Amino acid sequence: MVHLTIRVDFDGKEGFGPGKARLLELVAVKGSIRRAAAAMEMSYRQAWLLLAAVERTFGAPVITTATGGTKGGGAKLTELGEAVLARYRRMERNALQANATEISAFAKGAGQDLSRKSAPKRTRRRLSPGAGS
Amino acid sequence: MVHLTIRVDFDGKEGFGPGKARLLELVAVKGSIRRAAAAMEMSYRQAWLLLAAVERTFGAPVITTATGGTKGGGAKLTELGEAVLARYRRMERNALQANATEISAFAKGAGQDLSRKSAPKRTRRRLSPGAGS
Repeated sequence: MVHLTIRVDFDGKEGFGPGKARLLELVAVKGSIRRAAAAMEMSYRQAWLLLAAVERTFGAPVITTATGGTKGGGAKLTELGEAVLARYRRMERNALQANATEISAFAKGAGQDLSRKSAPKRTRRRLSPGAGS
Repeated sequence: MVHLTIRVDFDGKEGFGPGKARLLELVAVKGSIRRAAAAMEMSYRQAWLLLAAVERTFGAPVITTATGGTKGGGAKLTELGEAVLARYRRMERNALQANATEISAFAKGAGQDLSRKSAPKRTRRRLSPGAGS
């Protein structure tokens, strides 16, 4: 498989890319910052700092935490958090669709066969015409 | 300004993103790995390792070095190197074009005003409807 990821950078603010998107997604799915952090193999503090950065970028909270405190209670995305995530995924899909042909040629050049499961026949060191067109 | 960058990841190989693209570009412009590395504030070794990684990904050299040795002589992109870079930039442009509307809304949500130079009127903490649509 070939994956295309996007990253958006704003003037004077932190960017938004696959890591923050995945974190928001995991908070939504797991209902907890701690469990989302664990799923990404990062510390609670690291996850919290990332979410705070997203909040700074978009100017309002992207998650809400239930009673029980930030650590104990559950967490879910705010409307803004959901909108940011949805927009990011849409942009990612658009980028992929707009590059269907290019990505396939890029992957071929990198020795990735998209059409079948078997290993490509060409040897690894041969200059691949796929990337040279 | 809002920037969109892309990254392509291949199964079992290292990915290709803005850093490697910039490095290839700088080698082409400066005609030297050392000067390209300096322009990116990385060590010669670091640049060399990145270029070796790109070579592994695409299965053939992406730069050639002139007589005088890897360190002393000049360097330029091979045909493959040029093709990889050109394709990457094309994919980046396609991704941007496909997301013109989305990016503008995303940027608005992040308090970035694309239409004029003056500072946006809304305050920083206010929940921005721009990102919520």
